[in-house]
Amino acid sequence: MRILIVNPNTTASMTATVADSAARVANSGTQIHAVTSSMGPVSIEGYYDEVFAVPGLLVELAKGEKAGADAAIIACFDDTGLDAARALANIPVIGICEAAVSATAFIAQRFTIVTTMERSRLPLEHLVHRYGMAGRCKVRAADIPVLSLEDPTSNARERLRAEIALALKEDKAEAIVLGCAGMADLTAELRAEFGVPVVDGVAAAVKQAEMLVTLGLSTAKTGGYATPVEKPYVGLLEGFAPARLMAR
Amino acid sequence: MRILIVNPNTTASMTATVADSAARVANSGTQIHAVTSSMGPVSIEGYYDEVFAVPGLLVELAKGEKAGADAAIIACFDDTGLDAARALANIPVIGICEAAVSATAFIAQRFTIVTTMERSRLPLEHLVHRYGMAGRCKVRAADIPVLSLEDPTSNARERLRAEIALALKEDKAEAIVLGCAGMADLTAELRAEFGVPVVDGVAAAVKQAEMLVTLGLSTAKTGGYATPVEKPYVGLLEGFAPARLMAR
Amino acid sequence: MRILIVNPNTTASMTATVADSAARVANSGTQIHAVTSSMGPVSIEGYYDEVFAVPGLLVELAKGEKAGADAAIIACFDDTGLDAARALANIPVIGICEAAVSATAFIAQRFTIVTTMERSRLPLEHLVHRYGMAGRCKVRAADIPVLSLEDPTSNARERLRAEIALALKEDKAEAIVLGCAGMADLTAELRAEFGVPVVDGVAAAVKQAEMLVTLGLSTAKTGGYATPVEKPYVGLLEGFAPARLMAR
Amino acid sequence: MRILIVNPNTTASMTATVADSAARVANSGTQIHAVTSSMGPVSIEGYYDEVFAVPGLLVELAKGEKAGADAAIIACFDDTGLDAARALANIPVIGICEAAVSATAFIAQRFTIVTTMERSRLPLEHLVHRYGMAGRCKVRAADIPVLSLEDPTSNARERLRAEIALALKEDKAEAIVLGCAGMADLTAELRAEFGVPVVDGVAAAVKQAEMLVTLGLSTAKTGGYATPVEKPYVGLLEGFAPARLMAR
Amino acid sequence: MRILIVNPNTTASMTATVADSAARVANSGTQIHAVTSSMGPVSIEGYYDEVFAVPGLLVELAKGEKAGADAAIIACFDDTGLDAARALANIPVIGICEAAVSATAFIAQRFTIVTTMERSRLPLEHLVHRYGMAGRCKVRAADIPVLSLEDPTSNARERLRAEIALALKEDKAEAIVLGCAGMADLTAELRAEFGVPVVDGVAAAVKQAEMLVTLGLSTAKTGGYATPVEKPYVGLLEGFAPARLMAR
Amino acid sequence: MRILIVNPNTTASMTATVADSAARVANSGTQIHAVTSSMGPVSIEGYYDEVFAVPGLLVELAKGEKAGADAAIIACFDDTGLDAARALANIPVIGICEAAVSATAFIAQRFTIVTTMERSRLPLEHLVHRYGMAGRCKVRAADIPVLSLEDPTSNARERLRAEIALALKEDKAEAIVLGCAGMADLTAELRAEFGVPVVDGVAAAVKQAEMLVTLGLSTAKTGGYATPVEKPYVGLLEGFAPARLMAR
Repeated sequence: MRILIVNPNTTASMTATVADSAARVANSGTQIHAVTSSMGPVSIEGYYDEVFAVPGLLVELAKGEKAGADAAIIACFDDTGLDAARALANIPVIGICEAAVSATAFIAQRFTIVTTMERSRLPLEHLVHRYGMAGRCKVRAADIPVLSLEDPTSNARERLRAEIALALKEDKAEAIVLGCAGMADLTAELRAEFGVPVVDGVAAAVKQAEMLVTLGLSTAKTGGYATPVEKPYVGLLEGFAPARLMAR
Repeated sequence: MRILIVNPNTTASMTATVADSAARVANSGTQIHAVTSSMGPVSIEGYYDEVFAVPGLLVELAKGEKAGADAAIIACFDDTGLDAARALANIPVIGICEAAVSATAFIAQRFTIVTTMERSRLPLEHLVHRYGMAGRCKVRAADIPVLSLEDPTSNARERLRAEIALALKEDKAEAIVLGCAGMADLTAELRAEFGVPVVDGVAAAVKQAEMLVTLGLSTAKTGGYATPVEKPYVGLLEGFAPARLMAR
Repeated sequence: MRILIVNPNTTASMTATVADSAARVANSGTQIHAVTSSMGPVSIEGYYDEVFAVPGLLVELAKGEKAGADAAIIACFDDTGLDAARALANIPVIGICEAAVSATAFIAQRFTIVTTMERSRLPLEHLVHRYGMAGRCKVRAADIPVLSLEDPTSNARERLRAEIALALKEDKAEAIVLGCAGMADLTAELRAEFGVPVVDGVAAAVKQAEMLVTLGLSTAKTGGYATPVEKPYVGLLEGFAPARLMAR
Repeated sequence: MRILIVNPNTTASMTATVADSAARVANSGTQIHAVTSSMGPVSIEGYYDEVFAVPGLLVELAKGEKAGADAAIIACFDDTGLDAARALANIPVIGICEAAVSATAFIAQRFTIVTTMERSRLPLEHLVHRYGMAGRCKVRAADIPVLSLEDPTSNARERLRAEIALALKEDKAEAIVLGCAGMADLTAELRAEFGVPVVDGVAAAVKQAEMLVTLGLSTAKTGGYATPVEKPYVGLLEGFAPARLMAR
Repeated sequence: MRILIVNPNTTASMTATVADSAARVANSGTQIHAVTSSMGPVSIEGYYDEVFAVPGLLVELAKGEKAGADAAIIACFDDTGLDAARALANIPVIGICEAAVSATAFIAQRFTIVTTMERSRLPLEHLVHRYGMAGRCKVRAADIPVLSLEDPTSNARERLRAEIALALKEDKAEAIVLGCAGMADLTAELRAEFGVPVVDGVAAAVKQAEMLVTLGLSTAKTGGYATPVEKPYVGLLEGFAPARLMAR
Repeated sequence: MRILIVNPNTTASMTATVADSAARVANSGTQIHAVTSSMGPVSIEGYYDEVFAVPGLLVELAKGEKAGADAAIIACFDDTGLDAARALANIPVIGICEAAVSATAFIAQRFTIVTTMERSRLPLEHLVHRYGMAGRCKVRAADIPVLSLEDPTSNARERLRAEIALALKEDKAEAIVLGCAGMADLTAELRAEFGVPVVDGVAAAVKQAEMLVTLGLSTAKTGGYATPVEKPYVGLLEGFAPARLMAR
């Protein structure tokens, strides 16, 4: 089984963090192919960056599917471009926010996502609502830039810890979801420190991708995820017409 | 007052339809600038096309704001890229679905959007839900391609009429919202034929844009619509880094 | 275009405040006719006062429609008698709470209404729920009598400011809606003071009334807003039978 | 124990139907005082009639409370003026829609209200929503005038039966709520005919009023139901200022 | 009329408290039969205890129905086994949480349940949600063991009072619901102390049981509460096959 | 890894069906231990049967955990006793309805559960609501007894097919969830026949159990799933006091 993981931002070091997290949990028979998008922003912080992360994501998804991937994971916690990816691909596609929230629901009745930037809080609340967990899952932001997680001189990790402590106290959270792919390497230490389940969406997504592949399930194509209609795409984006993208 | 209308698909004839509808309702002191996106799909039918309509939309939005527009309208009924547009722009931005639904709520308790393609039904249901109207507004699709509305040899308009008739009967709709910018020219005749309010989102958006400008209101920048963070954008999309886009 | 504004309480000085706010934003071609109800309470503070504000409101609405008004606005923030007014009138009718909430939704994802009396908080929460904004809009009361807003010796305005400050901090409100017609004259100074969008429902309602008239839209009459059935009305209220009211 | 029942429409024969229904279920120690409003419409069909039924209702409520009533019931299925009545009175006040829906919830998971006029359907849906039963209770209208229920030559009862049959089949209703005080005398025969629980709101309200009195519970006065503020009421409605109304 | 009250835990002293509360409010013609379950846990604190309280409850319910009871009440605030009891019995069955919440809704718009153990908070929130009151009713736990309420040396009652005080302040609760059958004897003193309505579910359930019996209403048997299918039950629980249970 | 599957009804042939389905999808390193409850009903059809299926389920769960199971699955589609099981066990526990619904959400926006008995429809609707999927997932019943699925002479499978066909047409379901553990062996053929994703909850639960174990996640014990309080259990159920059950 081959699982493609696309980091939709263009920072390769974050892809490495993600790939490590995936490798730790994948089945022995599962090959993980983690790739970095070749176009767009170096981190995804809010609605604007999201837009420009999707084309590169779809390019990698199409390449991966042609190369034989059985399932794909979008490794950004705002589930960037998930709907478009499901429409394009014939293989199942999973977002790490959806995966994390879905996994946590099996082990806790009330939980909290702790993400990076305040500006990402409402987009994540929308996702949580759409995934049916608005009554069970709160969203908090530690108000730290995404890439500061990789900077040993920043206080990002302290702020993250402080926000987790608030979630346990004020939200009565029974479990914590790490709200950024770049936090994946912190899972074990935060679990040890806080004594509650701490969930990394990358790891959850790998196992759920394996589930879908093993069960022979893929995206339903009879509704909103129908294969895109072939039509002219023009200008700078001409090459993204569905057939051309798949033909790259 | 200058109102920019961006047609986020690349079909200029649809921009003309939209511009006509806008001109009919604009105040005498309002200048309407309707522009067609220069990159992306010729029509927007579902999640995939949406993705590739947004970059061109944002280019036109930035250009328009620099050229002095006081407000902007996104003239595609799936409110393509609305969140990103609000984050980028300092002027208020309105989507025609949001505008239509909001206007209709003043005159009817139950109403129905009739859109084109079945694949657009669920995306519109998500919008309706987000705009707080899930309990009052249903969505139906006439199952017609967007551009067939402009083709006199197609039966698109008959199918649209048939679906409106069903909405009145089965949904007990008190009013009809036309769920595609390309239907704007049909408003008057459908109103006469069915004897219920028929709402065109383009016209509604023009008046609500005038409202926001006159009231001195623009997008709140302290939450999810904060101005995008300046950061490297790479590859094909390098030119879309926020500052570069604004500097074009 | 003629827009009727009915102040459903019987305090003429508040009508003047409302008329000023309306005049500042009306189109040059729009005539504003602001009238004070001739019967009922001098201010509307809670469910009981609401009841006795509606007959006088409907009298003025009927008079105004006969006199040629194209649309009507109810200038009390609890949208007093809005449903009955829509059933009676053939012209569109707008409530200022509905107008304010609807306008603010275009510019902010989370916002807060700050009203006067604590006893009005729950009625406004019901309105917000009905207008589909329960997930986005909170309601706070500064706990001040309505008419104290007009009393320069009261501390009403200080209390209002204090409550706005709490809304920004505790609710993470991105915008503030002024929850009383009598606050209309404070809009500009509060906007300057707090640096966030501050929305006055009277001004919003004027522009949305202009929208409905320009778009040729009026209340759907096929559902709950059907014209009242002609029937005997007896006793003190005999004169309010629909036909008699319209014939006054 | 004395229970006041106010018929808020001005048709005495309907009061008699209501009084009969109440008498059949009241405890031996309970005195039922059923009164007819002395002002307003002869039947309540939609939002407009509701408005003019409330003043007369409040007059009778104030009179009844002064005369020693321990609880009051509003005998119109749209729970006319319930919020204002609760604010005015110190005794508990119950609406028959609220009573019926609340009672039925103890015996059925899914049920349907069958009311008279189509124009009352949405107002009742709003009540059902407010009473927390939107997911369990549907509303249907047999499309019959209220007073036709008392006219032996009309086909009102046949239409009511036909709508009940549809509710059982299409809604999978497990119980039926009669959506008009004027249907109270039909309860037993409809129960026999359809073999499902059929609930009359008048009877339910009597028992729940007895409950509140026996338990020593009355309306909480610390929130939205706080006693109305004393203030000038002017014009035709001068006599309805809270203190004057109570002093009549 | 005979009303059966089953205490589903096996602590007879709590049954006595419940019986006292019931006797104080029952009609003169109502006989109260309060029984203690003969099997299961001595108190019900959370999901696990609930499971083992239901068989004994159903045994007493079947016995009571055969002995002529007209209605039954389940006297534990988590409404233990209510769905199964409704399926088994032909007489109506009421849970005290449902009864309390339903009664309080007639007198307050916002209220709070104060229960014992923190682990019971979420189960009660689920009940409140199911009873349609999630928007109006909060749940708090004083974090005290159920049986400590009967221990004069514990500080349980002080903690209960402290939590009620918080509910009034932080939740703006207009009324308090006592969230444990074992608190029934505190109703009067808490009402006096806090000056707001305080509701005991046992008392409320008695009056609502009387209501259903007087109105001739019992559980609808055409949906999820259909009489259990006769089938083999094996092992230790063989005797609980529906017919055998009723034949005991 | 060892995964315990408990069939909470007492029909061993159904356990065999479940075990086959599990074995087909388990990882090579996963041992499946499928056991049949030793007490309770032979099938679970509605609320009453559910009650008596839980004690036997918990006995097997405790045994399995002591014997070294890493996770447990409850193989009945009404997720019988899931909350109590999570409170008792230290290993994660998964219900097959929750598993199926959660898996299907990754591949379809709208889907339908087709279950057996009409009386199970509402309990499943409650589950779907609780799992956050009420807006996306409908429930239908083919109105067939559970054990008829194993009877080659019954028309159960034809009725199931007919109901699936209705779900695709009337609900616009994009995928079908099989709403009974006893349907697990039909997955492949129904998928082939209807050409849409068909999901078996048993298979989904196995993979999600593997996920939780691999990720080192288990039930949060700080909320409603706290370990049961040790206390006397009396009568027939004495042996189910938490410590005794674990000590068997």
